[in-house]
Amino acid sequence: MPNIWQMTSYPEGLPRAGDFRLVETESVALAPGQIRVRNTWLSVDPAVRWRMERATSIVPLQPGDFIEGQAIGEVIETASDSFARGDLVSHGQGWRDVAVVEQAHARRLPDIDASPAAFLGQLGIPGLTAYVGLTDIAAVTAGDVVLISGAAGAVGLAAVQIAKLQGATVIGSAGGAEKCAILRDFGADATIDYKSGTSISRQLDAVAPEGIDVYFDNVGGAHLDAALGSARPSARFAICGMISEYSATSPTAMTNLRRIISSNISIRGFRVGNHLHRLPDFHASARTWTTAGRFKTLETIRHGLEQVPSAFVEMLQGGNQGKMVVRL
Amino acid sequence: MPNIWQMTSYPEGLPRAGDFRLVETESVALAPGQIRVRNTWLSVDPAVRWRMERATSIVPLQPGDFIEGQAIGEVIETASDSFARGDLVSHGQGWRDVAVVEQAHARRLPDIDASPAAFLGQLGIPGLTAYVGLTDIAAVTAGDVVLISGAAGAVGLAAVQIAKLQGATVIGSAGGAEKCAILRDFGADATIDYKSGTSISRQLDAVAPEGIDVYFDNVGGAHLDAALGSARPSARFAICGMISEYSATSPTAMTNLRRIISSNISIRGFRVGNHLHRLPDFHASARTWTTAGRFKTLETIRHGLEQVPSAFVEMLQGGNQGKMVVRL
Repeated sequence: MPNIWQMTSYPEGLPRAGDFRLVETESVALAPGQIRVRNTWLSVDPAVRWRMERATSIVPLQPGDFIEGQAIGEVIETASDSFARGDLVSHGQGWRDVAVVEQAHARRLPDIDASPAAFLGQLGIPGLTAYVGLTDIAAVTAGDVVLISGAAGAVGLAAVQIAKLQGATVIGSAGGAEKCAILRDFGADATIDYKSGTSISRQLDAVAPEGIDVYFDNVGGAHLDAALGSARPSARFAICGMISEYSATSPTAMTNLRRIISSNISIRGFRVGNHLHRLPDFHASARTWTTAGRFKTLETIRHGLEQVPSAFVEMLQGGNQGKMVVRL
Repeated sequence: MPNIWQMTSYPEGLPRAGDFRLVETESVALAPGQIRVRNTWLSVDPAVRWRMERATSIVPLQPGDFIEGQAIGEVIETASDSFARGDLVSHGQGWRDVAVVEQAHARRLPDIDASPAAFLGQLGIPGLTAYVGLTDIAAVTAGDVVLISGAAGAVGLAAVQIAKLQGATVIGSAGGAEKCAILRDFGADATIDYKSGTSISRQLDAVAPEGIDVYFDNVGGAHLDAALGSARPSARFAICGMISEYSATSPTAMTNLRRIISSNISIRGFRVGNHLHRLPDFHASARTWTTAGRFKTLETIRHGLEQVPSAFVEMLQGGNQGKMVVRL
């Protein structure tokens, strides 16, 4: 009997345990083209928080809806010519132990030497997100000064390394000295600790006195405002996430918006779902970088299906280093 | 003896009379390549307010500095082979009655049948600003739904007409029923009166229930936030001005920033000074449109050099219809 997490109510600010319920569901027969997958690794993604709102600008969850997310698992039953029992696949039916997946929505893991969990993070959608944002959206080139917020998260750590691989000078922002040490380990030239008590703007002025060319935003809010204040002429901003906003209950105060004009900044939001055709290119590059030892992965692992909501909330609070995953 | 307005102090919020002083200066001999111009029409430009700040992101004025702005006048003395006495020129040495101008910074008025004042507005830099923003920055095409804020100002009225000429559906925002009537006169399909008491967002939902494709921003603040809330997928924002911010003393509260991601919006700031090479193209189009009767001009005229600061403040408060100019 599959067990699936559902959302029971819209959270106010940070979600609480009562906003989720684990329910046992009927096992259904497979239709042609479907596979049944026993999930072994689940991802908890920031975007889920965004969907947990009554009036949201992306597909909202309704109370009672099953929650979704990236997952990796083993095919245990197949009605598809494309997949056999025992295949390891990634798909979008997470937050549950057993999933029924359309063959078109499942992918075999690419041939890269890494742990399965890495394919939920740096070698999966979060890595693709960093790749698309830096290459297609912000067009980072050698010599650029690149600021990355949320840099110790799954997307962020991939972005730090990809920007370095493009020849950029990289400034990573994260919360706490421990995460900043990880950023330097992963190649960041300078770090900003947004929990240090010194404002982001002041820290940014210190490490990038001549400003930034590119901003890769995972956080929004004060980070975005500081990045606008530090932008050099014709700076490019790739807006990937605004995790500081997802649980915010008041408007964001921005002081530097007019810099968009004075520094003729380009700001482009993007959702990786519109760029999935870039996955083969990303995987080809990631394989090369991984083989060369220049694309290190990092996961924070929690254990057991019942821990998924708490891992999710922990991630929203910045408790993860690299990708937050749950091992079943 | 030339009389020139100087800034005496940095204003707090809206400038006051005491922030300006009219000073009489020495008349200097012309150097080779210079011309002396008796100004007949002066422009008061929103960007001057932006420069009247201690810490600004565009070239700041210092207390005691002479103020500048676009102007039109007659050459009364020449040390240039390019200009003769009696030539009518436009240049950047406004806020004064007599100017010494480098020949490279003066331009003869183009051959378009219009009053000289129009060359400070719709047929001058403000018109070029609208043209660049809609064509080069936002790439408006037929069928787009285009929102223009500050639409009854000099840039705005040009933008309304240029967007219509491109085949767009145009929504103009302005303050008050009288200005909204002007917008409809100038071709706007729908209007938003931001002083009506109904929120901009709600009015925008009513006139553009399916959202907007392009936003041409002269105002910033609540207008920008409402435009983000209404943006359709892949909407393009050309950020030209943020007049609501120039005299603001508190941060701007934004509630819809994350729509940048969910609707993958592109936001591009621009300053017309980086696009002056487009002036011949703009004038060629403007001549055609003017001849066809499809590019109407409108000015609000004040009289006398001593009225320049009050005309400037009136313009900042939205007291102008079309271009605010001062006749000397």
